[in-house]
Amino acid sequence: MSATKLVNGLADTARLAARTLHAATGAERSAALNAIADAVLARSSEILAANEEDMVRARAAKINDSLLDRLLLTPARIEGIAKSAREVSNLPDPLGITLRHSTLPNGIDLQQITVPFGVIGMVYEARPNVTIDAAAILLMSGNAALLRGSSSAASSNQILVTVIRDALKTTKISPEVVQLVPSGDRDTVTALLNARGKVDLVIPRGSASLIRAVVDESRVPTIETGAGVCHVYVDEFADLSKAVPIIINSKTQRPSVCNAAETLLIHESLAKDFAPIALKALHDAGVVLHGDARTLALAGSIPITLANEENFCTEYGTLEMNVAIVDSVDDASAHIAKYGTKHTEAILTENKANAQRFIALSDCAAVMVNTSTRFTDGGQMGFGAEIGISNQKLHARGPMGLEAMTTTTWIVTGDGQIRS
Amino acid sequence: MSATKLVNGLADTARLAARTLHAATGAERSAALNAIADAVLARSSEILAANEEDMVRARAAKINDSLLDRLLLTPARIEGIAKSAREVSNLPDPLGITLRHSTLPNGIDLQQITVPFGVIGMVYEARPNVTIDAAAILLMSGNAALLRGSSSAASSNQILVTVIRDALKTTKISPEVVQLVPSGDRDTVTALLNARGKVDLVIPRGSASLIRAVVDESRVPTIETGAGVCHVYVDEFADLSKAVPIIINSKTQRPSVCNAAETLLIHESLAKDFAPIALKALHDAGVVLHGDARTLALAGSIPITLANEENFCTEYGTLEMNVAIVDSVDDASAHIAKYGTKHTEAILTENKANAQRFIALSDCAAVMVNTSTRFTDGGQMGFGAEIGISNQKLHARGPMGLEAMTTTTWIVTGDGQIRS
Repeated sequence: MSATKLVNGLADTARLAARTLHAATGAERSAALNAIADAVLARSSEILAANEEDMVRARAAKINDSLLDRLLLTPARIEGIAKSAREVSNLPDPLGITLRHSTLPNGIDLQQITVPFGVIGMVYEARPNVTIDAAAILLMSGNAALLRGSSSAASSNQILVTVIRDALKTTKISPEVVQLVPSGDRDTVTALLNARGKVDLVIPRGSASLIRAVVDESRVPTIETGAGVCHVYVDEFADLSKAVPIIINSKTQRPSVCNAAETLLIHESLAKDFAPIALKALHDAGVVLHGDARTLALAGSIPITLANEENFCTEYGTLEMNVAIVDSVDDASAHIAKYGTKHTEAILTENKANAQRFIALSDCAAVMVNTSTRFTDGGQMGFGAEIGISNQKLHARGPMGLEAMTTTTWIVTGDGQIRS
Repeated sequence: MSATKLVNGLADTARLAARTLHAATGAERSAALNAIADAVLARSSEILAANEEDMVRARAAKINDSLLDRLLLTPARIEGIAKSAREVSNLPDPLGITLRHSTLPNGIDLQQITVPFGVIGMVYEARPNVTIDAAAILLMSGNAALLRGSSSAASSNQILVTVIRDALKTTKISPEVVQLVPSGDRDTVTALLNARGKVDLVIPRGSASLIRAVVDESRVPTIETGAGVCHVYVDEFADLSKAVPIIINSKTQRPSVCNAAETLLIHESLAKDFAPIALKALHDAGVVLHGDARTLALAGSIPITLANEENFCTEYGTLEMNVAIVDSVDDASAHIAKYGTKHTEAILTENKANAQRFIALSDCAAVMVNTSTRFTDGGQMGFGAEIGISNQKLHARGPMGLEAMTTTTWIVTGDGQIRS
């Protein structure tokens, strides 16, 4: 059977089964997630055995250690997977929420309520925990799931989806709402990305190259998650006692993630006194520095190389940072507009007007005022589960929780009104 | 200059100029719209003269009458254009609205506020009024506009954009926020649809074929507006005194638009008594009928042909309708799921449980309960201006007003908090 026929068939089956999800109450969806969490724990030995098969293949294929670590499941990680499913089950039901409600002059009752998308495809890489995390978030938000993980995790994903489906057999929800898309060859990804009308939404989760490929190729609506070249701007009215800790935290607390800062912008009035202190603090924290000409002139004995265009565009993901001197909030915003990725931008200032100006000129998912860029995170923002951080403007922007996995319907209730 | 270079240049200019929009207050944006409305009236003779050039070319090209009518501007229509711009100026400012607000345990203040997309491209057909309507809605929502109308309206669009830009010169908003994309050849459309990162959103407005082409070709996020194969289901618990007027209104009040009904579904318990009455009412209203086998058996002397798969999939846009007998709410929903376009579906019932079941199973932008499908309309729903009806699930669903032209930003305000 062709990959297209296969994937379309899975989507049709999932959509029909999703009617059991739409008919289910929030409590019933929540109970299903707890049944899945129970099953994951009860069958952990099967899951570990299947994961070991993947690990053996991966080691034989000489896959690098960081990928091996992402692929690995341990009893502790399985407990973590079950725990996160339970956490999702405890979140408020995102469905049936009335977003707008009014009565029209003709007496019609108008309500906009949240509803599921329908069938959502996930395209993701190594980490098998995504299989349970995504299924939990999608089921809790009333969506059927087409899960296309990587072939390296094929055995782990197969048993995890089996565990999910077996657990659903004990609930009011059809096991067919979760479908594993075979990962044998890439044709199934292409088929998923072209299943327009069969699949309502595709979410890529993984490397920048995976996300780029999915967004470029997809004819199904996608939510782009992506790179963060985040900036910290120290304004002339910054409280300098807060500045260094925020800069160090933004850059070094977890350099590998998208909300870590890559470039420090300092107002020229602070160049002489503060810039050297900031450079030394970064250097002492083990950060490799690149600066513009004005910064280099202030570095003294601190090692720093001249930053080029490429440096300012780079998401290092490591202990490496650019530094530039700017003349104003507008100048800082212009730099950010030129080199940023619209993810997270921070301003450190005690001047409300400057903060407002920076907010108005920053075209990004999150603006930080006097705090670390690291707070652009669903967990930190109190969303509970996070399926990713949207780095685009349509539908959802920033960390995406259960609410972002819903769309809306207008319910227009009349008593025989007709349009004249 | 290549079309790509040209369009990217217009987008860059518009984005830079949009900073004047972001810095402007709602009152200033509103005043700009009124300045545009004044200018449209003051320069109506120029506008009519330019429109006459388009009409002369169109007549020479033997363009059909309906297209000629859509292209035509008259003093009355120009007054209407100015009036609708003023109406938009009177709507509440959609920007800076706080959608979510909380204080995190660490004391951080978290706010999600509405902000503009940035640069929005419109691809549309003949009607020159769209040039002013779209500019008004996009400016009021803080967005720069790249307007790509059809070549048939080139002279009209040229003068209208000139009038807009001259009017903006008297305001705090840069005239460069509105750019006319040359309509000489299609390359400029292709360039617009591929201006990823330069253009934030593209909205197609016009025929189904235009919309399909834009959505398929675009690598810029698009909001799909589209076809409506809308259904009216008469449930076994319907108040039949309301049924016929709603059916007739849904089908005949304006058959050419997307929220007109194309198929009538009748519960089998009403087949004998009510179906013949409905068929006669539709026939008397001049509606050409197509029915399933069960309906044909009830039609008596009323002319009706056997409906095939194609009939049930067709958006007639004329006085033509399909009729089918169904056995239950679920059966009606299954028919709708098979043939509908997720636009607007109506149920006529006095039974709340059946209405709820129909709502839960209807995967569409708007569900009507005991009222006409014709109410899926921004004006009718009280949105004021409408830039189109979204027939997709991402970002906006159903009629789109000013709010749909905004995205969001998280504003995270701290007092030096860092992440541990």
